[in-house]
Order: sequence, then C-alpha cells, then structure tokens
Amino acid sequence: MKTIQAVSYPVHFQEESYTELNNLINKNNYSTIFILVDENTFEHCYPKFIPFLDTNKTIELIEIESGEINKNLETCIGVWNAITELGGDRKSLLITLGGGVITDLGGFVASCFKRGIDFVNIPTTLLSMVDASVGGKTGVDLGVLKNQIGLFANPQMVLVDHQYLETVSEREIKSGTAEILKYGLTYDVNLFHQIKNNKELDISDLIFRSVEIKNEVVLQDPKEQNLRKILNFGHTLGHAIESFYLESEDKENLTHGEAIAIGMVCECYLSHKLLNFPVDKIHEVKGVVLSIYDKTNLLKEDFSAIMDLLKHDKKNVNGQVNFVLLNDFEDFKIDCKVPEDLIVESLEFYNE
Amino acid sequence: MKTIQAVSYPVHFQEESYTELNNLINKNNYSTIFILVDENTFEHCYPKFIPFLDTNKTIELIEIESGEINKNLETCIGVWNAITELGGDRKSLLITLGGGVITDLGGFVASCFKRGIDFVNIPTTLLSMVDASVGGKTGVDLGVLKNQIGLFANPQMVLVDHQYLETVSEREIKSGTAEILKYGLTYDVNLFHQIKNNKELDISDLIFRSVEIKNEVVLQDPKEQNLRKILNFGHTLGHAIESFYLESEDKENLTHGEAIAIGMVCECYLSHKLLNFPVDKIHEVKGVVLSIYDKTNLLKEDFSAIMDLLKHDKKNVNGQVNFVLLNDFEDFKIDCKVPEDLIVESLEFYNE
Repeated sequence: MKTIQAVSYPVHFQEESYTELNNLINKNNYSTIFILVDENTFEHCYPKFIPFLDTNKTIELIEIESGEINKNLETCIGVWNAITELGGDRKSLLITLGGGVITDLGGFVASCFKRGIDFVNIPTTLLSMVDASVGGKTGVDLGVLKNQIGLFANPQMVLVDHQYLETVSEREIKSGTAEILKYGLTYDVNLFHQIKNNKELDISDLIFRSVEIKNEVVLQDPKEQNLRKILNFGHTLGHAIESFYLESEDKENLTHGEAIAIGMVCECYLSHKLLNFPVDKIHEVKGVVLSIYDKTNLLKEDFSAIMDLLKHDKKNVNGQVNFVLLNDFEDFKIDCKVPEDLIVESLEFYNE
Repeated sequence: MKTIQAVSYPVHFQEESYTELNNLINKNNYSTIFILVDENTFEHCYPKFIPFLDTNKTIELIEIESGEINKNLETCIGVWNAITELGGDRKSLLITLGGGVITDLGGFVASCFKRGIDFVNIPTTLLSMVDASVGGKTGVDLGVLKNQIGLFANPQMVLVDHQYLETVSEREIKSGTAEILKYGLTYDVNLFHQIKNNKELDISDLIFRSVEIKNEVVLQDPKEQNLRKILNFGHTLGHAIESFYLESEDKENLTHGEAIAIGMVCECYLSHKLLNFPVDKIHEVKGVVLSIYDKTNLLKEDFSAIMDLLKHDKKNVNGQVNFVLLNDFEDFKIDCKVPEDLIVESLEFYNE
C-alpha cells in the first residue's frame, strides 16, 4: 500500500512501514528509543511490534494507564520524569504505540521534552488511525476539557498497520467508524454509502481513504481557516456530550465515536433548520447511526450542563459557539451561529 | 531608542514600545487580555504599566507566586485553569509582566493553551531583559532540572523599558549583569571592559547592546548548531550549581547570575587547561566576578552532587557533557569534552 505524504511527514502503511522506521532510526543515530504504551497495548500490540524493530539501540519502555481519564498533565509529568530518569536526551526518539490517548499525549510529551525530541506515532485503534494519524495535533485534557492543552507538532512519521485492530474491541472499531462516517458526510459520500450498505467492508481501504481525505483537507487548509473545519463536523456538540458523560460519576462514559455520532445526527438536524440540508437525509444519517450504535438516552435535565460545556469548546471565539453545518452531503458552511433553543431541539430530535 | 527586529518578532524599547503594543491589540481584535504577574510585579510594575495600556478590551489579571521554585507544571496548571475559568479563547492575548520565571512560564502557558494563543513579553528584571527577551525559548523546570519542559515559541513582541529596573533589588541587577559579562567574554569584549572599569555605566546602553548581540547570535544560528552555543558559556556548570543550591534545603539559593558567574570563572579555567585561554585572563575574569558577587563557598563534599546534576544538562547527548569554551575573549570552541577530574579542579580553582 503506498505511502501518503502528509504536510511535513509521511504516513506509511502495513509491513513496509517498519522498514521505513528502521531506516529512520539508523539514519538519525538516536541515543535511546523510548516506547510509550498503556497496559493494553503493552500486552497486545507490543509483542506484534517488537519483532519488526531492527536496531541495536537501547530501548526503554514507558507504560501509562489506559483511558481518556489519564490523558492529563499529571500523566505527562510522570512520563517526563521517567524519560529523565532513564537518561533521555535531545537525541532520544519516542515511539507512541496505542490509541489516541497515547499518540496525542505522547506527541505532546515529546514536543515539550527539552524543547522537543523526535517522535513516531503508531496508532493501534481505528479511531487513531483515521483521525490522529494526520494533522499534527497533540495535547491532553484539562479537567473535563478535551485537548485544552497542546500543540501543533509533527511526528517524524506515522505507521498504520491494521494488524493492531485485531487487538481492540468491537466497540472501539465502531468508535473509529464515526470518523469515517464524518469523512463520508462532509467530503466523500461514497464512504457513507459503503458503511450504510455494509457489504463486506474492506477496513484497510476505508482507513487508507480516510487518511487520504484528512491529508487532502489539512494540506489545503493547514491553518484551519476554512475547509479543515469540516473535521469538526459532529464534534462541536459531540465533544460537549462526551465531556458531560466523562464528568458524570453515575453515567457510563461514551466512546468518542458514540458521542460524535450523536453530534452528527444533531448537527444534521441543525443543518436542516438553518441551511437547506434535506430532511430525508437527516433521517438517513440517523438511521445509519442507530444501526451501528446503541441509542443513548439524553436526559432533558442534563441539557443545560451540556450547553455549559459547549461554551468551553476550544474553537469558540468571543464566547460564540461556531458550528460547521451542511448544505448537503459534501457541501459545508463554516462559522454558523446557532440559537441555544435550536441546539436543545436538536438533542430532542436525537432522542425521538 | 530604535526597535530590534528579532527572528520572528520585534523588540521595542522604552515609551514607544507601548504605542506598538496598543497598535497590536487594536489590530488583532483580541477577545480578552490576560496579564500574568507575580505578587511583586503586581505591586510594583503593574501600576507603572497599566497607564500605558490604551484599550477597551476586557483585562484579566492572573497572579502567581514569585520565585524559581514556582516555575513548574503545577503553576502552569493553575494558570491554565484560571484562563479557562475567565473565559479565555483562541483569540486571547497573554501579556507577561515580570522576570524570567514569568516570561518563560507565561510563554509556555500561552503556546500550549488551546494549541497556542498570542503572547507579549514585558521583562521587568535586568536578567530577563538581556537574556529572555530574544530567542523564543519558553519553559518550566521539572523538579530541580531547569527548563526541562518547554518549547521554542515566539511572542508577538517584546517590550523593554528600564523603568521597571527601579522596582528590583541590587542583587537582581547583579544577577542580570552576569549575562552581560557573558556577552562581553564571548562576543564583544568592550562590554566586559565597560563593566570592569565600571565608570558611570549607562544601563540602558548595556541592555540595548546585549539584546542586539543576542539577536545577532540567534539570527545567525537559529538552530543552536554553532555560534548560538556561546550563549551557554558559563551555563553548563552554572546551571548545575544553581540547581544544586535550589535543591539543598540547608543552603541559601544563588541567583541565576551568581551561579553563572561562578560557572564562567570555572569554564575560563577549563578553557585555559584544554585550549589556550591565557592564564592572566582567567584571573582577570575571576577578579571582575569577585568584585561584583560575594564569594560562594563551594564545599568539597558537594562536588559529586553537582557533577550528577551536570549529567542531566539539557544539552547533553549520549550522556556526554558538552562545554563551550574559549580560546580567547571573543573566540569560542563548541562541543568540548572535559574530563571529570578537571571539572572538579575548576571548582577548586574558584574556591581558592
């Protein structure tokens, strides 16, 4: 499978990618190679990865606890201390092996350690393969606010190998599917139809096409002034819903994809109300979403807390929430202001 | 006084600088202006600064505790939470008003908040005016390791106004003088002679010339591959000594300049032993240093702790400490390896 050249780094696929990684390591004469894992990727992915690594450099493993709840600065401090104690210097390389928490946090850790060391991302979940592999976003959460602290920073390369998907749950695969749906709705409706019709999905093709799309989008609009905002479709409301469930002690957390899928249904509804997004397509999107994900029961009494979280969205400016909405599939409009009562209505529409 | 154009931003001087700041604010339509201070700069500098600020934007003050001991990630988390609670968004501006702790930490905080907001530095100590104002280095300490976590990130502009020096102690002025001495020894010996002869020093000239030199150095070698390493003269040993006193509970801390001054004496000694730095000039440098700073009594029993800290220097690669040494005034050699016993000897030389 061919390499995709992202803005400042390549995304390599499947087995060839390890050859590229070994070349990188040999070429750069790194002092130490740190591999960041969590307890799951250590158990399931590390044994699949390590036979491909061909180097006589010192390898140091750093393990953090899995889960979004640990994607915070306390964990970063722990990793920075570990790298320091293990003798990390400016010529160290950090390889992240895991889902979005590991790749986002690891990229941030590497970019700030002694003002920046090289890092390589190996996403092991569908979500991180199709979403976090391109775009150079790194970061961690601040309290319940997702990715509040972070940077744009480019890895040396990204390796996408779908063998790691054997190690994750069906729920995680579904979580990543939401991002593929998003590329379908906003950029290439074929992807949406493929998922809707669901006949023998070739996951490796879906991943490649998603990375390709994200890369096209980021290349065309690196500074997130226009086109790149489509990547936020479903995420404005989705993030608020995800944060709400994360901070509610008596509710089970939603996966990122589950929350984003709800966000996309609601934002299709807003698109219909404020633009001319066709009514039958809202129902089509909701149908596909509910065919993949269990229905979440959003409680009316929780709406105001969700609205509050919405006001903290990173993309807000001057206290104004900005949505990207759809005129139609593959046809977006950025910076849409939405009245608060309409947002509530859209949550109710999802609930119906 | 004319503006110095640093790599990606201007350094403005004296009263004109506030006009530039007001222009920047008006041009960029910032949502909120955050001003980061400590209890000292709030009391002494803020009242001098605020009359110059001409804007109807919301101004929010964030105060942290002064001192190197607070230049850490816990303080950053506090500031990030404060900015969040005060409604900070991507169009916020952070103005740092203080010494190196405030400007270094504030720059780091701004650069990581929501993946980066604009910031402006107003150094209020001599040290931060001549050192931190150019070069784009931001960061905080990790435990006793100075600036272990940070980034290269450029402010929108830097304002240097020596009225703020009225607010700081003589000891602080002396701390900054060490950096001016460094520029003298490594780049422009006139500065060294001016301080040595000490006749009616024009502090404003010394600052301007120091900023000019640092800027020339950084412009010529932005990636710190050669010339820029002269900025580390005295700092390799100096940082280790500074860290040692910072972590010793029973010893009074040294200022940065006091530690760096000792480092310069020791590194002149190493320069003499390993290169051809003339012996009379070591004594000349030591004489000037001791005419400014009280002698510190470095205890033999502390040498091994200082050596250990040296091994954690950010600039080390493959466990090897790299010194920049002098063949003569204004004539440096980078990446010098120094045997451990010679380093001990140089500490003893300072003690003599």
